[in-house]
Amino acid sequence: MFNDFKLTDRDRPAYIQVKDYLKRLILRGALQENQKLPSTREMSTLLSVSRNTVIAAYTDLEEERLLYAVPGKGSYVAAVQSSVTDEELSWQTNWDSRINSYARKAVELDRMKHGIRAGRGFISFTSIAPDEELFDLENVRRAFMDRMAIEGNVLLNYGYAKGYKPLIEYLKRYMEQKGVDLEGKDLLITSGFTEGFDIVLSALGRTHGTVLCENPTHHTAIKNLKLNGFEITGIEMEDDGLNLQQLKQALSERAYDCAYLVPSYHNPTGIVTSPARRIAVMKLLAEHQIPVIEDGFNEELRYSSSHALPLMSLAGQGNGVIYLGSFSKVLFPGMRVGWVLADRELVSYLESIKRARNIHTSTLDQSVLYQYLHNGHLDKYLKKARSIYKRKFEWTRKCCEQFIPFAKVSGDGGLHLFLKFNPDFDTHLLLEACSEQGVVFTPGDMFYTDERGRNTMRIGFSRVSENDIERGLRIIGRTAAELLGKRL
Amino acid sequence: MFNDFKLTDRDRPAYIQVKDYLKRLILRGALQENQKLPSTREMSTLLSVSRNTVIAAYTDLEEERLLYAVPGKGSYVAAVQSSVTDEELSWQTNWDSRINSYARKAVELDRMKHGIRAGRGFISFTSIAPDEELFDLENVRRAFMDRMAIEGNVLLNYGYAKGYKPLIEYLKRYMEQKGVDLEGKDLLITSGFTEGFDIVLSALGRTHGTVLCENPTHHTAIKNLKLNGFEITGIEMEDDGLNLQQLKQALSERAYDCAYLVPSYHNPTGIVTSPARRIAVMKLLAEHQIPVIEDGFNEELRYSSSHALPLMSLAGQGNGVIYLGSFSKVLFPGMRVGWVLADRELVSYLESIKRARNIHTSTLDQSVLYQYLHNGHLDKYLKKARSIYKRKFEWTRKCCEQFIPFAKVSGDGGLHLFLKFNPDFDTHLLLEACSEQGVVFTPGDMFYTDERGRNTMRIGFSRVSENDIERGLRIIGRTAAELLGKRL
Repeated sequence: MFNDFKLTDRDRPAYIQVKDYLKRLILRGALQENQKLPSTREMSTLLSVSRNTVIAAYTDLEEERLLYAVPGKGSYVAAVQSSVTDEELSWQTNWDSRINSYARKAVELDRMKHGIRAGRGFISFTSIAPDEELFDLENVRRAFMDRMAIEGNVLLNYGYAKGYKPLIEYLKRYMEQKGVDLEGKDLLITSGFTEGFDIVLSALGRTHGTVLCENPTHHTAIKNLKLNGFEITGIEMEDDGLNLQQLKQALSERAYDCAYLVPSYHNPTGIVTSPARRIAVMKLLAEHQIPVIEDGFNEELRYSSSHALPLMSLAGQGNGVIYLGSFSKVLFPGMRVGWVLADRELVSYLESIKRARNIHTSTLDQSVLYQYLHNGHLDKYLKKARSIYKRKFEWTRKCCEQFIPFAKVSGDGGLHLFLKFNPDFDTHLLLEACSEQGVVFTPGDMFYTDERGRNTMRIGFSRVSENDIERGLRIIGRTAAELLGKRL
Repeated sequence: MFNDFKLTDRDRPAYIQVKDYLKRLILRGALQENQKLPSTREMSTLLSVSRNTVIAAYTDLEEERLLYAVPGKGSYVAAVQSSVTDEELSWQTNWDSRINSYARKAVELDRMKHGIRAGRGFISFTSIAPDEELFDLENVRRAFMDRMAIEGNVLLNYGYAKGYKPLIEYLKRYMEQKGVDLEGKDLLITSGFTEGFDIVLSALGRTHGTVLCENPTHHTAIKNLKLNGFEITGIEMEDDGLNLQQLKQALSERAYDCAYLVPSYHNPTGIVTSPARRIAVMKLLAEHQIPVIEDGFNEELRYSSSHALPLMSLAGQGNGVIYLGSFSKVLFPGMRVGWVLADRELVSYLESIKRARNIHTSTLDQSVLYQYLHNGHLDKYLKKARSIYKRKFEWTRKCCEQFIPFAKVSGDGGLHLFLKFNPDFDTHLLLEACSEQGVVFTPGDMFYTDERGRNTMRIGFSRVSENDIERGLRIIGRTAAELLGKRL
C-alpha cells in the first residue's frame, strides 16, 4: 500500500497531491472505516515527501471529514459512503431516444462536426479568425491589471444581465461615432455575435415564418435561422450588394418576419454594399415594414472602399433596425463579447432572455475589453492590423488573379476572398484533389440558402503566411486547371 | 467652430479624443465635403492641444477616409455619407406586437425585473452571492499572469465549444475525487450552471412534458423549466430530503421526462439529503428509468454534516445522471464557468447546441480559473471561506432561534437559511413591514412549484455583517411577533 504514489506536477502543492491521493483511496474503499493510517512520520517516508506535507494533507482530510484524529493515537478513516454502488442504481438509457429534434438539428447543422480537417503541415484557407501573432498581449495584460486594481472584487462577483455599465456606455458612444441616433434605443451585451443573433431570433414572433437574407450569407446565421424554425428566402448578391429587382419581387410575393443583412465585408463574398445601394435596400424594406437585423461584421477592417454608414444610421430615429456588433474578428475572439443595439422595448425582452440563458456575459471579459478600449488601444491596434491584413489581402488577390485566372474574385476587405468558377465546376472535387496535396479551403455551397454555390469557394487568409498563400493558391490553380482540362 | 472641444478623460489618449470630436462633426454634416480644415498648427491653438496630437488625429482620419490631404495645401473633408436621413427610412414599429410568447414569458418570470429593491443602507438578506471581500484577488491576478505568459495568444483566439482542454481534464479528475465513474461520460464547459441547465432542457424530448423536482426548489430552475415548456411536479422536502411516499405516489401516477434534484445545501431550504435517503430516491427513480439532472449547488461549502456522495457517484457506470457543477457560489460568479458531466453521446448533442448558442465560453475565464485551481488555491480559499461562512451561518442560526423563535429554521450549510412560519402567516406582509424599517429578505413562495410557501422565507447571510445580521433578524423577529399578535 502507498507505493503507487508519485508527485506528478511540479506546480501543484505537494500536500494537495497527497490529499488527492488519499482521498481517492478512501472513496474507493481501499482504506476502510476506522482503519488507522500510518503516522505522519511513517507516511512521509512511505510517500517520499516531507512530514509537513503529510501533516497538511491529514489536516485537510480531517476538515473534509474523511479522517478523524484520536488524540495521542493517530488518524483514522471516517465513515464515508463508498462509491462502490448498488447494481440497481446503475441503469443505462439510450439518450438518442430521449433527445428532441432541436438537438438533432443542432448536430446535423454543426459544420465543425462535419467539416474538413486539415492535417499537420497543411496550408489551410478555412479560417477567418484573426492572426493571433498580431495580438496585443502587453496591453491586454495592462488592461487586466488596471481594471483589477480599480475594482477587482466587483469584477469577480455577479454583474448585470444587460452588461458591464462602463462598457455599455463606451459602446453607445462608439455607435454614435458611426452616426447612429441613440434616441429610444438601448444596448445589451452578449457573449459574441452568435449569442446576440440567437437571442434576437428566439424572441421574434414567427408570424410569417420566413426571413430574408443575402444569398450566399454567413453559414452560422443560416444555421441559427434554421434552428430557430425560420424558413429562409435568399436574395442574390451582386457586386454592389443585394439584387434590387429580386428583392422587390420577393417582397411583393409574401410577407417576412425580418431581414438579416451584412452590408460590410459580407461573409462569404467580401462585398461592401455601396451607400446608394444601402439606401435603396432600406427604402424597399421600410415600404414593407420589414425589420432588419444588421450584422456589423468586420466593419472596422476597412482597407480601400470609402466610408459607409451602418444601416442603423440610415434609419435615424426609426426603430426598425437591430444592430449586432462584435470585435471578435478584429480583436480577441477568445473573449466572448458582442452587443445588440436596438429599440429600448425590444432590448428589455432580450435582457430577460439573456438572464434566463446564462445570467450575464463574463464581467472579466467585459471589463478587460472596456479598459483596453478606454485606454485607446483599439485604434492603435486596428492601424497595425489593417496594414498587415491589407498587404495579405492584396497579395492573396494578386495570387488568385495570377494562379486561378478562370475564377471570378470578389472581396473589398476583411479576412477572406470569394471565388466563383463557371457554373458546372465543383469545388468539392477541387477540395478533394487539393487536400491530397496538403491544401484546404471552404467550398462555398455551405453559405447558400438554396442548393447552389457548388462552383464557389472562400479563401480565408488571416492565418496563412504570404509564402503559404502563394504556394497554396498555386496548387489550387493548377489543380483547378486540371479539372477544367485547361493548360495554365 | 471648434470652441466646444474639451479633453474630458485623463486616461484616454488626447489624439483619440480629438479624432472622435472631429469625426462627430464630419458625420453630423457640421463639416462638409471638400471643406478645408485649419492647419495642424492653427487647430492645435483652437483646441488647446499639442500640434503632434492634431497631426496624429488627422493621420488617423485620413486612414479612415474621412479626410484627404492635398500635398502642400492641407487637409480636406472627404465625401462621407451623412447620417442626416431620409424620412422614408425612419419608420417605427411596435415591437411588442412582433415578440413571441417565449420572450414574453422570459420577462414575466424574470424575478430581477419584479423583485424587491433594497434601498441605500438597507440590511438585505436577499443575496446568496459570495462575499466579495473574501475574494482572493492576488492569486487570481497571478493565475492570469501565469496563464498569459504560457499561452496568451491562444487564450485570446477562438477555442473549442466543449471547453478549454486543461480545464476539462482538471474537472474530470475533480469529479473522480467525488467518486464519479467517468466511464462512458464526457464533460462540457458552460457559462455557469444556468446555461448548462438551459442547454440540457433545450435538448430533452418532451415525451411526457413533465419534470419531477423538490418543492420548494431553486427559482431559476423553475423559471427555466417553464421557459422550456415543461410542467413541474414538486415533491415535498422533509428534513432529510424528498418525501419518499410522495415520490412513490407521483411515480405511480404518471411518467416523467426527468427529475431535477439538489441533494446538497438545497436552495432554498439548505437541507443536505442524507446518504441513505439519496440511495432510496435513486432506487425509486432507477426503477422507473427517470434520468436525473443533479445540481451540485454549493457542494463545496460543507460545515457540519458528514461526507455525502453526489447522486452521480451512486449511479456508478450508469448513464442516467446529468451532473451540473459550478464554483460560482464558492469562488467567482463574475467568471461565468460551469460544467455538465453526462453520458458521452448526450454531451455530443449538448456541445452542438452550445456552439450554436455562443460558440464557446470565454477562454480567458476558463484559463484563469484553470490556473487558479491548478495552483492549488481552491483548497486554501475554501478553507478560509468555509471558516468565515460557518461562523456567520452559526451566528445567523442563533439569531434566528433567539429573535424569531416562532419560525422553524432549516439549513445545514451553504450561504442561507430557510424559515417556515405557521401555515396562515404571510411573509409578504412581513416583508412589507420590515422593508419600511430598512430590512429585506426573500419571501419563500417564489421557490414553490405550486401556490404554497407564503409562510416561508429565505435568509441569505453571505454579504451581511454579523452586526447587521443581528440587527436585521431582531427587526424581523419583532415585526413578525407584532403580526402574530405575540409578545416577545
